[in-house]
Amino acid sequence: MSQTKATLHDALREAITHNDIDTVQALLAEMQPADVAGFVRNEDSDTTLRLINELPMEERAQTIAHLDFSDQLHVARSLDDNNLVRLFMHMNADERVDLFKVLDQTRQETLLRRLAHNEREDLRRLSSYAEGTAGAIMTSEYAVIPVDCTVEQALAHLRATAPDAETIYQVYLLDARHRIAGTVSLRELILARATAPIRELMRTDVVSVDTETSQEEVARLIAHYDLLALPITDTEGRMVGIVTYDDAMDVAEAEATEDFHKGATVGRLGAGLRQASVLTLYRKRAGWLVLLVFAHLFSGAGIALYEETIATYITLVFFLPLLVGSSGNAGSQASTLMVRGIATGDVHLRDWGYMLGREVLVATALGVTMALVVATLAWYRDGWQIALVVSVSMVAVVFVGSVIGMSLPFLLNRLNLDPATASAPLVTSIADAAGVMVYFSLATAILGLPVVP
Amino acid sequence: MSQTKATLHDALREAITHNDIDTVQALLAEMQPADVAGFVRNEDSDTTLRLINELPMEERAQTIAHLDFSDQLHVARSLDDNNLVRLFMHMNADERVDLFKVLDQTRQETLLRRLAHNEREDLRRLSSYAEGTAGAIMTSEYAVIPVDCTVEQALAHLRATAPDAETIYQVYLLDARHRIAGTVSLRELILARATAPIRELMRTDVVSVDTETSQEEVARLIAHYDLLALPITDTEGRMVGIVTYDDAMDVAEAEATEDFHKGATVGRLGAGLRQASVLTLYRKRAGWLVLLVFAHLFSGAGIALYEETIATYITLVFFLPLLVGSSGNAGSQASTLMVRGIATGDVHLRDWGYMLGREVLVATALGVTMALVVATLAWYRDGWQIALVVSVSMVAVVFVGSVIGMSLPFLLNRLNLDPATASAPLVTSIADAAGVMVYFSLATAILGLPVVP
Repeated sequence: MSQTKATLHDALREAITHNDIDTVQALLAEMQPADVAGFVRNEDSDTTLRLINELPMEERAQTIAHLDFSDQLHVARSLDDNNLVRLFMHMNADERVDLFKVLDQTRQETLLRRLAHNEREDLRRLSSYAEGTAGAIMTSEYAVIPVDCTVEQALAHLRATAPDAETIYQVYLLDARHRIAGTVSLRELILARATAPIRELMRTDVVSVDTETSQEEVARLIAHYDLLALPITDTEGRMVGIVTYDDAMDVAEAEATEDFHKGATVGRLGAGLRQASVLTLYRKRAGWLVLLVFAHLFSGAGIALYEETIATYITLVFFLPLLVGSSGNAGSQASTLMVRGIATGDVHLRDWGYMLGREVLVATALGVTMALVVATLAWYRDGWQIALVVSVSMVAVVFVGSVIGMSLPFLLNRLNLDPATASAPLVTSIADAAGVMVYFSLATAILGLPVVP
Repeated sequence: MSQTKATLHDALREAITHNDIDTVQALLAEMQPADVAGFVRNEDSDTTLRLINELPMEERAQTIAHLDFSDQLHVARSLDDNNLVRLFMHMNADERVDLFKVLDQTRQETLLRRLAHNEREDLRRLSSYAEGTAGAIMTSEYAVIPVDCTVEQALAHLRATAPDAETIYQVYLLDARHRIAGTVSLRELILARATAPIRELMRTDVVSVDTETSQEEVARLIAHYDLLALPITDTEGRMVGIVTYDDAMDVAEAEATEDFHKGATVGRLGAGLRQASVLTLYRKRAGWLVLLVFAHLFSGAGIALYEETIATYITLVFFLPLLVGSSGNAGSQASTLMVRGIATGDVHLRDWGYMLGREVLVATALGVTMALVVATLAWYRDGWQIALVVSVSMVAVVFVGSVIGMSLPFLLNRLNLDPATASAPLVTSIADAAGVMVYFSLATAILGLPVVP
């Protein structure tokens, strides 16, 4: 399939180069919106504009929703007011509001003036929710059926309203105060007898969250309950929207990417890696790199404290990267396991004691294994005294690194901070400093040297 | 909501303690299968068994599908053959086969003997696919309608067969050789006029993959095309199953977890972190920790090479953790960005040149920033000569670390290895070694010292 896709892309690129509009249109007609968006992502902005504007309005609206915001904005800028209004009318409510939010203010005002009353109010309301909340990713286009009807009437009602709903596979029933009274799936409707009252079919234990809930929690609930859509209420409990599973998948991917980046002390990029500017990348990486300088200074200070020991046994420096490196690596392993475990809901705050107990066992076993490896090496290179220092140090630093790495995410979580802040570089830097102190103090003690104050 | 959930859990726990079966059953009836599974995950295995066996068979089958395999196996072992067969009849085809595969061989044979012909053949076929492939996660329970019928006939057909299908929202039409001729959504069926021939409604550009395709690719396609289900064919193109979006979400989460762990040199756990045994954790962590000892030996060897320099300027050791640490941290940032970019399809192999060009700019800017920070410090502490050595080294090591970190995932990808192998600890260890060499050779050159061979 990827072979035929590559061939299609080549054919399309050639048709564009030769300005062969008929072939371009024929090829575009064969492609799905997600694929057209995937193709133009690798093209320059002129080609993007030309291709997008070749599409019929319906496909154009769907394709644009798959583009990055910078490309979406670029397309929106190329359209006159009339065409922008038409595009907005064809887009889904949740995708429309995302585009609306990146437009400049005068364009926003023009749009609001020109849109029909319902669309205008919808856009105003949806654009009012903070980024990262359920409100900001929900759509207002959900299917509702009256509480007091039969299956047959419900199906007829759905047929009449379906074209405006993002999904009709999960249908909601609201009471007089617009609260969720129940839900029924289209599957249940199709299987039930035509004259059955909806009240008998509907499930009343409906999982819902309010607009302020984090998008991460929304995605987690959809995955947990295998939902097609999660209903969203306002803070007074009135239904205002749904988030569908496909948006939950996008959120889950974006949140995982953010956690990956955080785990390497890279800030939130906001766009894809290819689209992020050099300046953005610099800014999102520089912060923690500079901060960690101060963590490394502790290591330096530890070394300065033991300069006498080092000067006497210069060979100790040979093992320094190995010991602090192993401490940092074991710490990264432990912190990553915990950060991901907490993120997926596999591990909870109350599990700290249990996890610590196991970590103590695992870290000791790892430390002893590593000690055996380095003891052999050190004995061969520098004799039994250094071998003793290095191997005892190894057990200690791997243990200390692991326990720090394992505990830091819990501590951050306890303080209501993001556990993912316990990044590999942060844990490594702390474990390094601890490793230096442990190594040289053990060396000083075992080799019988005085500590210089 | 989580408040009420906690209250429910407390009430349930109390009812269990007091052996109050009526209350237990009443509370269980209020809970969704995913929540019952979530509850028993934190209970001991006796309580798990008691609760699961309190559930009616239908709910029991659904709840078990949400449990870890160790718990599933535990439940299966507690059932006699009759009840196990009944449980299997109630489970979904894809979940049933997962449980089947972890049973011991005699139990498997008993089951196969007792199941009806269709279930037996289904189980045999589904259990034959390799772990991690589309075949291993698909279900054989998909909805098919005849090609030559009207909308009305199709709906009647669906009503008759729906109870056996995992989803009826996407329906497939097969030709005489069992190849996919087209697909139609239930939404389209509901909206079309009753007498319309299906041929006019169906879409023929159906995205499908074969059973050998990786589960990662399946999840990627479902997210990319916003599919409810992806049809799976055998290697001859005959349709044999579907993978639904909810399974794709689970796969995406599991794959992200695996990449997180790989990024910290932890091998595939196979189970959740809480469920993994101490021995498994030790095994999955020890491998790379020991391997990386050899990477650290290069750093040690670099230091040994410059012992003369170090002995003359012992203060250089003070800045060692800072320089090699910064090199490693910048390298982790660069590699993590690339590994995740490649995993999400945001960055491709052909982008290497473009990404390298940007990395050179970002790394230089980062290096200069860091150099300014440490130069101030070194000047104040040790005078301008050391400040010069340390700041020039900082620019060099951050640059080298970043370029190594950025290039390694591409190189691994080029060699058809998993880019995620370019873990933070591996990149840090390589960058450390490079940093030591760069630092001390620059120091030797700038301070005008001889290199001892």
